[in-house]
Amino acid sequence: MMTPYKYLLYTYPGTCAFASHCALEYVNADYELRRPDFQNLLQSDYVGINPKGRVPALVTDHGTLTETPAILSYIAQTFPAAKLIPENPWLLARVQEFNSYLCATVHVAHAHKYRGYRWADKQSSFDDMQMKVPETMSGCFRLIEDSLLRGPWVLGEQFSICDLYLVTIARWLEADQVDIAALPKVIDHRTRVLAHPAVAKALQNEKPS
Amino acid sequence: MMTPYKYLLYTYPGTCAFASHCALEYVNADYELRRPDFQNLLQSDYVGINPKGRVPALVTDHGTLTETPAILSYIAQTFPAAKLIPENPWLLARVQEFNSYLCATVHVAHAHKYRGYRWADKQSSFDDMQMKVPETMSGCFRLIEDSLLRGPWVLGEQFSICDLYLVTIARWLEADQVDIAALPKVIDHRTRVLAHPAVAKALQNEKPS
Repeated sequence: MMTPYKYLLYTYPGTCAFASHCALEYVNADYELRRPDFQNLLQSDYVGINPKGRVPALVTDHGTLTETPAILSYIAQTFPAAKLIPENPWLLARVQEFNSYLCATVHVAHAHKYRGYRWADKQSSFDDMQMKVPETMSGCFRLIEDSLLRGPWVLGEQFSICDLYLVTIARWLEADQVDIAALPKVIDHRTRVLAHPAVAKALQNEKPS
Repeated sequence: MMTPYKYLLYTYPGTCAFASHCALEYVNADYELRRPDFQNLLQSDYVGINPKGRVPALVTDHGTLTETPAILSYIAQTFPAAKLIPENPWLLARVQEFNSYLCATVHVAHAHKYRGYRWADKQSSFDDMQMKVPETMSGCFRLIEDSLLRGPWVLGEQFSICDLYLVTIARWLEADQVDIAALPKVIDHRTRVLAHPAVAKALQNEKPS
């Protein structure tokens, strides 16, 4: 069966799927975006695409791939000329270490603001979780500011998928009530990544036409 | 400076660090175990090793590496003869997809049993979170049983780091009050992985001498 595009990315504006969107744009991939019904992911046909009922999901010639760290690495390794991921096993491990921290700790901290029902049942628990998000997100970004963001890019001199993933989550800082004045390196990094033409294009694509 | 070992793994019995421990044993690495003060990780010298105050942390000749998916991939890629990780980029993406799900969704679901203070402040919230763990862990393992565990191993015919990581978390099922009778594939897989000599050796190493 012929398809008019090679990659299909299921995404939704403002979500972590932005990182995968930026990567596709950065490597100049032939791709198209799809927006599932984000408020009803588990009650829609989308569970046939991704049974987890989450974005992103990347449809490829091999099958459908989920989870941001996996999608980012796959895009980067499929387009090696873009040099979005190092080949050296130690640096590759550093990429995975950083991206694992973002997906398993930082994104999870953020998710407690509106997705408390994933882990509890009572409204009082959701309120309690929501109140703590500024503290937990500040703690995560304190570590990124002080230790993990080497500068000028996450890995140091080499721009990588880590930068695209970090800027995606750093877009949530103000809404999560984190004091950005305490994070000069993170904010300078965010400004520089958002100015990259590929990232600017992905931002533009997010807007309703 | 001479060191009498090549790798140093900071671990604690029963934690997710078991996966990295198994991988070191499986590839026959020259390693030694260290047990930090697990109840006071953030108040001990251990934060100098891993500022996140979590296990595992792997000390290597290049530096210290954290986050289970990163440590597992690094060990597997550093010892290619053990064939614990595929080289093909698509299968490698599948490895990362599975391991990302374990670290960002399954382990996080489990962590709400005793680590509710990470995301909330009130005892009533902790109790609410704890009550939900059997449900969330059952849901995660339902997906693994029905879709993600291809059989006989996670990736299909090839044994990999995914199997070591899965067995690590599957050890928590009974304590998390998941009905294991509903998970025949997962339990059969767990039995077979735990019977591997390298995994059995790691189990033995966990016991107090």
